[in-house]
Amino acid sequence: MLDWSARLKQLRSRMIEKNIGLVYLTLGANLFYLTGFRRQQNDGTDHNAYGDWAVGAYIGLNDGIILTAPRMGGAYHQGEVQDKPWFQSVRMIMEQENPLDVMREVLGCFNLRGQKVALDDRTWAQTTLGFRNLLPETELVLASQLIAPMRMIKEDAELALMRQAGEITDAVFQKALQRLKPGVTELDVATEIDYQFRVMGAEYTSFVTGIRFSGPGRTQSATAGRATEKRLQPSDSITFDFGCVHQGYCSDFGRSAFVGEPPAEYVRIHHIVLRAQEEAMKAMKADQITATQANAIARGVIEAEGYGPNFTHRLGHGIGVTVHEPPFLDLVDQTILRENMTFTAEPSIRVPDWYANRVEDVVQVTKSGAVSLYSTDHRLYVIA
Amino acid sequence: MLDWSARLKQLRSRMIEKNIGLVYLTLGANLFYLTGFRRQQNDGTDHNAYGDWAVGAYIGLNDGIILTAPRMGGAYHQGEVQDKPWFQSVRMIMEQENPLDVMREVLGCFNLRGQKVALDDRTWAQTTLGFRNLLPETELVLASQLIAPMRMIKEDAELALMRQAGEITDAVFQKALQRLKPGVTELDVATEIDYQFRVMGAEYTSFVTGIRFSGPGRTQSATAGRATEKRLQPSDSITFDFGCVHQGYCSDFGRSAFVGEPPAEYVRIHHIVLRAQEEAMKAMKADQITATQANAIARGVIEAEGYGPNFTHRLGHGIGVTVHEPPFLDLVDQTILRENMTFTAEPSIRVPDWYANRVEDVVQVTKSGAVSLYSTDHRLYVIA
Repeated sequence: MLDWSARLKQLRSRMIEKNIGLVYLTLGANLFYLTGFRRQQNDGTDHNAYGDWAVGAYIGLNDGIILTAPRMGGAYHQGEVQDKPWFQSVRMIMEQENPLDVMREVLGCFNLRGQKVALDDRTWAQTTLGFRNLLPETELVLASQLIAPMRMIKEDAELALMRQAGEITDAVFQKALQRLKPGVTELDVATEIDYQFRVMGAEYTSFVTGIRFSGPGRTQSATAGRATEKRLQPSDSITFDFGCVHQGYCSDFGRSAFVGEPPAEYVRIHHIVLRAQEEAMKAMKADQITATQANAIARGVIEAEGYGPNFTHRLGHGIGVTVHEPPFLDLVDQTILRENMTFTAEPSIRVPDWYANRVEDVVQVTKSGAVSLYSTDHRLYVIA
Repeated sequence: MLDWSARLKQLRSRMIEKNIGLVYLTLGANLFYLTGFRRQQNDGTDHNAYGDWAVGAYIGLNDGIILTAPRMGGAYHQGEVQDKPWFQSVRMIMEQENPLDVMREVLGCFNLRGQKVALDDRTWAQTTLGFRNLLPETELVLASQLIAPMRMIKEDAELALMRQAGEITDAVFQKALQRLKPGVTELDVATEIDYQFRVMGAEYTSFVTGIRFSGPGRTQSATAGRATEKRLQPSDSITFDFGCVHQGYCSDFGRSAFVGEPPAEYVRIHHIVLRAQEEAMKAMKADQITATQANAIARGVIEAEGYGPNFTHRLGHGIGVTVHEPPFLDLVDQTILRENMTFTAEPSIRVPDWYANRVEDVVQVTKSGAVSLYSTDHRLYVIA
């Protein structure tokens, strides 16, 4: 079981350490992480309800959390807090009220005495300016400085959920492989994956499912990963990039396949990608390497083989309640890797107007290196 | 064709009117509306890239737009502006840079001379605080005050796209009806709808597809509209709530169905809902009624029949490049309806532990009332 009260307690001791008297969180990943309040799925376009910019959770040093909620749709918010005694009250924002007045009223419940206020990083401008105006003397800082370090190290219960997300993902990949016949479209395969995730009980996909067919002279979509109506042909490479959310925790997965006999250079590329991942994972020992050093190891393998310019992104990113979260295995992140941090390890080589290859696992940092949370074989999947 | 340069010109004249020297837009609906820069689909969970909080478009009173973009993934941004000469440059944020320094550099290109700066409403806290710190003397306001009034009145080219979105939606509904056999799950029907949207060329759904099976004693999900594994039974009611994005413009649609012979009271409810919609639409004449008055008409019909407490939301919302946008047909919005405003008209009656009924059209305001952009019949769809 996830221990919400321990998390809140840890947050509050960090707040005291940093002289922060109040944390304001939008209804996103941080609030879920700290309280279990489930996120509503993002909409395809903006969703606007009366007062929504002022909706969020106020966490002080004492007492329970005060949640503001829109009147319309607020049954969801009331339902979510019902079994969570760490919420003190839900203050509905009625259509007849100015949401700024509700903010003022809720802020009146907290005696800040010169302490700082931490805002969720994606707090809307109107809300940030509201805090600025209502608390002109108060220093406003970002909540991520408190919560991101907590989220980096996964507890056993979190790792168990991420392993379950991995099992669902492994199973969905097998279903997707069955759809790889010449003539199928990228969209067909992506739709199958999205459908199978829902059938297997995942909440939703953790990002837009990416399926890419590539081959000599075949145009590649600029909209990274977005599946198109392109049809699979003999001698195409196929790259997968997809994941799900399972009980609030994310997966992110990748493998590569080929229709028919792959050319020798493509097989070589596949092994370079695999070696880049393996060597980085071997080196990702707790307390012995930084995030950027791990990235450099994978990049070094690919550069030594002459494909450096074809590996256009970072080795990976932290993953947990969001699919991309700190630390980042990139050019700059100096975080020292610790036991039970989780990352993607996802090197790739993409040659424009030719082929693409990628492999991606979610890995857990241990004392003896990183281990994958998936059981799917890393081979190049050859489609007859 | 959508006339982007006319929109930018109109924005700038509004900026001068309101003494605003610079508009900062995130990569969302407002930027698409003003420039044609396509939004990337929202992810299921947060997507984090280096410097992403500082990514956005800077629109001054003269010259082209300066776009900041993350180095990783920035090919998308460069691709998008290539055929849009109203963008002056793309300033990549490199991993070795502090994004705040990039903000400072870009701001240096604008001479504000005491003018205000308008921020997109969903600008992140870090960015808002960045503007606050970099421009301590500048008044910060919300960009919606400039752009929302422009977006309210649809041009002919926008109405044409919304009608096309409606045609796709009409066709998808027919496919969904074919799936309504006892034993099918809400999830099966929702998945079919999502799949058909993609097959028919829609970009993605404009919100999470909502399918709800209801009947006496059947538990209803608290997560509004989210499809579940619940199986369709004889004597269930089915409510639909779904829509798509087509070339940047949204649809939002609803109808109701019943398995077998509906009880007389359910048929009566259906006709109350239809009458609430019809009477509101008839009254929605350009220049003659406010948004909240239209809401009151529909609510009045339902209340007179004793179902007021079962109509828990507003009559509708503006719709265009986002699925929910001002004006709102709600309890408070005093906006006078104008020709070529577009709204949803979506009354509903939901009786807990019994049945639900809803109907929803996107409607265009004309001098003689509101007209639907859909051609699907409003009847109660009876499933044999």
